[in-house]
Amino acid sequence: MTVITETQKGLAFKTVEWTGNSVRMIDQRALPGKEVYKVYRDHKGVAKAITDMVVRGAPAIGVAAGYGAALGAMKLASKTTKTGEFLKNFDRVLKDLAGARPTAVNLFWAVERMRRTARDNNGGKPAEIAKRLVEEAIEIHVEDDRMCDAIGRHGAKLFKSGDNILTHCNAGALATGGSGTALGVIRGAVNMGKKITVYADETRPFLQGARLTAWELMKDKIPVVLITDNMAGHFMKKGVIDRIIVGSDRIAANGDVCNKIGTYSVAVLAAENNIPFYVAAPTSTIDMNCPNGDLIPIEERPIIEVTHMGGKRIASKNIKVRNPAFDVTPAKFVKAIITEKGIVRAPYKSSIKKLFRK
Amino acid sequence: MTVITETQKGLAFKTVEWTGNSVRMIDQRALPGKEVYKVYRDHKGVAKAITDMVVRGAPAIGVAAGYGAALGAMKLASKTTKTGEFLKNFDRVLKDLAGARPTAVNLFWAVERMRRTARDNNGGKPAEIAKRLVEEAIEIHVEDDRMCDAIGRHGAKLFKSGDNILTHCNAGALATGGSGTALGVIRGAVNMGKKITVYADETRPFLQGARLTAWELMKDKIPVVLITDNMAGHFMKKGVIDRIIVGSDRIAANGDVCNKIGTYSVAVLAAENNIPFYVAAPTSTIDMNCPNGDLIPIEERPIIEVTHMGGKRIASKNIKVRNPAFDVTPAKFVKAIITEKGIVRAPYKSSIKKLFRK
Repeated sequence: MTVITETQKGLAFKTVEWTGNSVRMIDQRALPGKEVYKVYRDHKGVAKAITDMVVRGAPAIGVAAGYGAALGAMKLASKTTKTGEFLKNFDRVLKDLAGARPTAVNLFWAVERMRRTARDNNGGKPAEIAKRLVEEAIEIHVEDDRMCDAIGRHGAKLFKSGDNILTHCNAGALATGGSGTALGVIRGAVNMGKKITVYADETRPFLQGARLTAWELMKDKIPVVLITDNMAGHFMKKGVIDRIIVGSDRIAANGDVCNKIGTYSVAVLAAENNIPFYVAAPTSTIDMNCPNGDLIPIEERPIIEVTHMGGKRIASKNIKVRNPAFDVTPAKFVKAIITEKGIVRAPYKSSIKKLFRK
Repeated sequence: MTVITETQKGLAFKTVEWTGNSVRMIDQRALPGKEVYKVYRDHKGVAKAITDMVVRGAPAIGVAAGYGAALGAMKLASKTTKTGEFLKNFDRVLKDLAGARPTAVNLFWAVERMRRTARDNNGGKPAEIAKRLVEEAIEIHVEDDRMCDAIGRHGAKLFKSGDNILTHCNAGALATGGSGTALGVIRGAVNMGKKITVYADETRPFLQGARLTAWELMKDKIPVVLITDNMAGHFMKKGVIDRIIVGSDRIAANGDVCNKIGTYSVAVLAAENNIPFYVAAPTSTIDMNCPNGDLIPIEERPIIEVTHMGGKRIASKNIKVRNPAFDVTPAKFVKAIITEKGIVRAPYKSSIKKLFRK
């Protein structure tokens, strides 16, 4: 299998890869026990992989959706030479992908970018448009890889050697097409020679911290200590945690941050203990059409994620369960947002607006 | 098997029972999957059951330790008729029991009460002292049962019909010799005809909320919704939670509350969201020798509780883990402490002192 994309250089694994006629993804549900790669040859498979969390993390979902759209376009182009028919059917492909998960704005951002690319090239034949769409999907991926490195460079300045950094969920290489957002900053600091120890919240119910963050940091030989989510406050109070950094699935125009469930609690506890709470995310995560975090739809996921662990039932049958996958951290708790274009601080309404003028 | 103690009336299960020559306990590690009862005929078995968390919850540990001491005394009395030798060896029995777990003050309280009982009766022969110790252990249990009901009566007044009450860990019938402390209050409110829905934090790593609180409330047909620990803040912010009630493993003389890891986070989030945070505990949980919470030793438990779930590994091998079992909530976050002698509020230093004058 020829892998075309040259992303995530220097890492011991690849999150998403384009092979020319398929997309290959590490199955994140099997980690840390097994390193399994899955290959998808059509857009429906990619959409299902996003829904089922084979791939997760807002930027990685965007990258996967781009390739999913490219696969859809290639298939349509092999069936018709009529541009109008192609574009109409391509809209259906994009609809399937956009419906895979409801919260991460990067998914819709990637889908809209692919739609725009198709429309911008509507003078061409389906085969030409499909070729252009493949290039655009690769471009989304390469840009994401570069964005992670840029976020890492900007954010690394905020960390001191010797810092214990708490993170929640996985905003790492596994969540992006590159070195990660929050973990991109940690990798950036480590690359600058700073001594960093990461405290990783296990992140119930899906255990992205225990299964993914801890796994990828250990692979990169960055010291990591695993704790349960409800220990974070205790270690903040005890003075163990110096700084906190998380990723985001969607940032509103006012700086409210939607991220993995539990992030809000971490942010409140950080404020109580005077610990800086940072968010690392590419500008594609910022939704300028969303004035504040209360307007972000919060996905509720299947209750089996809470009632079962490793296939084993841990709660009584017929129990009522709530399982929101995300929460919203009000901007007032966020010390800074680290993007590929630089660091912004409160007041966010104006500082975020400036980001998009650059 | 004849069960002598008449406690936990009206409940569908018994946490600890005295049979005359053994102590029978529900194995809380097997819940909610299986309802298994274990029988212990010597004090070492009881000590190990406390260490291994067959029985857990501060008041239940106290009750079990009392019976453990009684079993130890009966065995010693069958071997010697010399009071001096008996008392000396009984001190060793008590030492074994006191060493079973380090944080819950009720354990030491029960052990000291048994020691005092033995000393107060040192004019008698070992057989007589042992008989008196058995009576004292039963008395500890019966008192605990009555204390739960009293806590329930006092606390129930604080709840309104229609309330959604969040609780953390299990401060229920399974944690006591009676109807529970925090859940005793919930049962008290339900018995008064109030409509209550309980939101139960699953309480990682040992999952006392998912496995025990949800199980015992469902057994009692009290509506319960299971959430992960990191969802509690989100539901507080969304206005879903009206009040919070938890138990305690040790309360310092200034009102600082040591309880299951994660309690501190819940309390900080409650303050941020203006939600009353209550603690329910018998006065035996209050350690007047401990001026503030920072002086309470925090047990660190085996890391396998974090790295494995249901026997299955969820984190990489050789990962570093921290596993403190408790944290301390400063008194300033506690709206009221509900004891069997009544409700106390800030300033706790004086209000707690008054409790012991009654």
